[in-house]
Amino acid sequence: MSIKDKVAIIGVGSTRFGELFEMSYADMVVEAAYQAYQDAGIEPDRIEAAWLGTANPGTSALDGDAGSSLAEPLNLYPRPVSRVASFCTTGMEAVRNAAFAVAAGEYDVVLVVGAEKMRDVPTRGSLVARHVLETHPYLCKGRTAPGQFALVGTRYMYTFGATKESLARVAVKNHHNGSLNPRAHFRNEVTVEQVVRAPMVAAPLGLLDCCPTTDGAAAVILARREVAEAMKSDYVLIKGMGFSVTGGYYNMQFQADNDFLGFRATREAAAMAYKQAGIKDPRKEIDVAECHDCFTITEIVNYEDLGFCAKGEGWRFIDDGVSTLEGDLPVNTSGGLKSCGHPVGATGARMVAEVTDQLRGRSGPRQVKDARQGLAHTVGGPGVLSCVIVLGRP
Amino acid sequence: MSIKDKVAIIGVGSTRFGELFEMSYADMVVEAAYQAYQDAGIEPDRIEAAWLGTANPGTSALDGDAGSSLAEPLNLYPRPVSRVASFCTTGMEAVRNAAFAVAAGEYDVVLVVGAEKMRDVPTRGSLVARHVLETHPYLCKGRTAPGQFALVGTRYMYTFGATKESLARVAVKNHHNGSLNPRAHFRNEVTVEQVVRAPMVAAPLGLLDCCPTTDGAAAVILARREVAEAMKSDYVLIKGMGFSVTGGYYNMQFQADNDFLGFRATREAAAMAYKQAGIKDPRKEIDVAECHDCFTITEIVNYEDLGFCAKGEGWRFIDDGVSTLEGDLPVNTSGGLKSCGHPVGATGARMVAEVTDQLRGRSGPRQVKDARQGLAHTVGGPGVLSCVIVLGRP
Repeated sequence: MSIKDKVAIIGVGSTRFGELFEMSYADMVVEAAYQAYQDAGIEPDRIEAAWLGTANPGTSALDGDAGSSLAEPLNLYPRPVSRVASFCTTGMEAVRNAAFAVAAGEYDVVLVVGAEKMRDVPTRGSLVARHVLETHPYLCKGRTAPGQFALVGTRYMYTFGATKESLARVAVKNHHNGSLNPRAHFRNEVTVEQVVRAPMVAAPLGLLDCCPTTDGAAAVILARREVAEAMKSDYVLIKGMGFSVTGGYYNMQFQADNDFLGFRATREAAAMAYKQAGIKDPRKEIDVAECHDCFTITEIVNYEDLGFCAKGEGWRFIDDGVSTLEGDLPVNTSGGLKSCGHPVGATGARMVAEVTDQLRGRSGPRQVKDARQGLAHTVGGPGVLSCVIVLGRP
Repeated sequence: MSIKDKVAIIGVGSTRFGELFEMSYADMVVEAAYQAYQDAGIEPDRIEAAWLGTANPGTSALDGDAGSSLAEPLNLYPRPVSRVASFCTTGMEAVRNAAFAVAAGEYDVVLVVGAEKMRDVPTRGSLVARHVLETHPYLCKGRTAPGQFALVGTRYMYTFGATKESLARVAVKNHHNGSLNPRAHFRNEVTVEQVVRAPMVAAPLGLLDCCPTTDGAAAVILARREVAEAMKSDYVLIKGMGFSVTGGYYNMQFQADNDFLGFRATREAAAMAYKQAGIKDPRKEIDVAECHDCFTITEIVNYEDLGFCAKGEGWRFIDDGVSTLEGDLPVNTSGGLKSCGHPVGATGARMVAEVTDQLRGRSGPRQVKDARQGLAHTVGGPGVLSCVIVLGRP
């Protein structure tokens, strides 16, 4: 048995991503969910169960702590609403757990919402500040996210001869895509020169190599395939899912299988998802992808880990323009984390929504021609968890 | 379709519950998991995926934050390890989500661990202190857990004529059961007089009406029914599951459906689980139950909400001794939250382990004679979420 082709996506929605000081956590989840209801063409009452993905509960330590934070604003009472948390893979983990329940035949139509307030955190400070404050043995010694991914950047450039310009081209591409996405946090174009000359954060990563800190929510409605078929024609199917936890927990350097040139978690999760989907050559069989570009170097190693190109060839992949909107395998058509923004719990759901829209031909100026199969990918915490979901037209 | 009879429990394990200052979070999950491996008769490598339930991550804000906290100490790499969080229903929610994945045919054998460090929290303080500290609009005004459940106690006594002695009998029963359970936090017997005369916490709830703050972890191994059948004879089956989120989030008093005499979430969750399990009269069809006795009054209203007796009759149910070990429907044979302790994320998994042992005839001096069907029940946050799982012999 396998969950392949048993679960359909029938509707998606998303807030604008950005500094949403004017919206509460509840405002965000309501906007995302009602867009998804409308897209699916269903009344809210049709939802039988829901999954909420929020990585770090909000200012009161209650927003997003449990399913109640979704059930209350949407009045889902008395339905079951689960909450999952899994660092940067949170949103996709919510989709994955919901998909199991649908594939098991427990529910016909379920809602998934990923949501995170990242800017609106006066009492807690940023994730990094919180970790430092709470004196984690590694993090309090400067192992912030930029600091950790910078190690991959340095090692990658040293080993394969990539330059800061190649890294910069990821930012240029994703800002261009974001400029076409009305929901993106950043909608400005940037140049290679601007990225390379930006203030340094953690060498070799400058300010424009880093994704922003963003508020946002995204929603996905799943249905049993037979139910979806009876409702509409423009649904997409989950073809394969993979989730992997690897590496030492914040002990990246002690892992024999970590060469600082990519992430084993991504390779394992992709292998699981490809096997389930029956994909042998992702370079040819994937038409569009959203991947986890928390930093520019991350997208480059993702190309390799996801099997889009050989090890050490990721920087040529972006240099050659293969992953641009006009290229052969467009990546992060949304603008990615880099430009669309990265509200941790929302990102995975937002990616699934973007790929769904691409496969339904609804992406407007960023539409990839005749996209039939795509994938969403997140990696997190730092590089120790990864989730890959392959979607396809029926 | 339904998940009924598709998922088996083939092994369970649990640490001692108590003030485990000598054990780290990792120590706890390892002990619980290896007991479960041994009970199931499997090598750790047989586990294909895992679910971790922890409600509030630990002192460093990292222990229990994501599946990594389980994957690392157990070396589950590169397998998927999800984390769910759902206040006091966390441990059962972990079982529920894992069961969906098994029922969907995605995995044959999976591990569920619930774990919580409640005593060992120097930087954060207790849950209550944290909430007050972070100035939640209601909690900071004294709406602690005892304060909230006390409202139910007062209303219940006023409406139905129950006395503090009836509440006390719940404590007496559960301390007696705990005295027979080597893993219980409290193993001392108490008398009605001691409970009634204990220092007041929130009237009518005195110190001995309240469950303690406890460290602990519990593990459950699930397998596809066909796989379990091939492995061993003493497995139990999941007959039905229900999970419900109701009421206003910390706005209990504004809910028209809340009469302060019980919890709608429990009634809804029980209705879902009974429907799936095909149970029409739980009083006759349930032989043993673990229910959420965070306070003595909670167990009394649970009797009613779970359908063990009519509304307003719960206090007579305990007065008549129906729920004692020798009674007709023994409840909280483990000692319950009251005596066994309540490490939030662990409790639900610990309850499922206790009922599993009862159904396999492995409960030693607290064994219920010929128990064929049982249930586990949690209610949380405060009274707005509830999970019910019905287990039965094959």
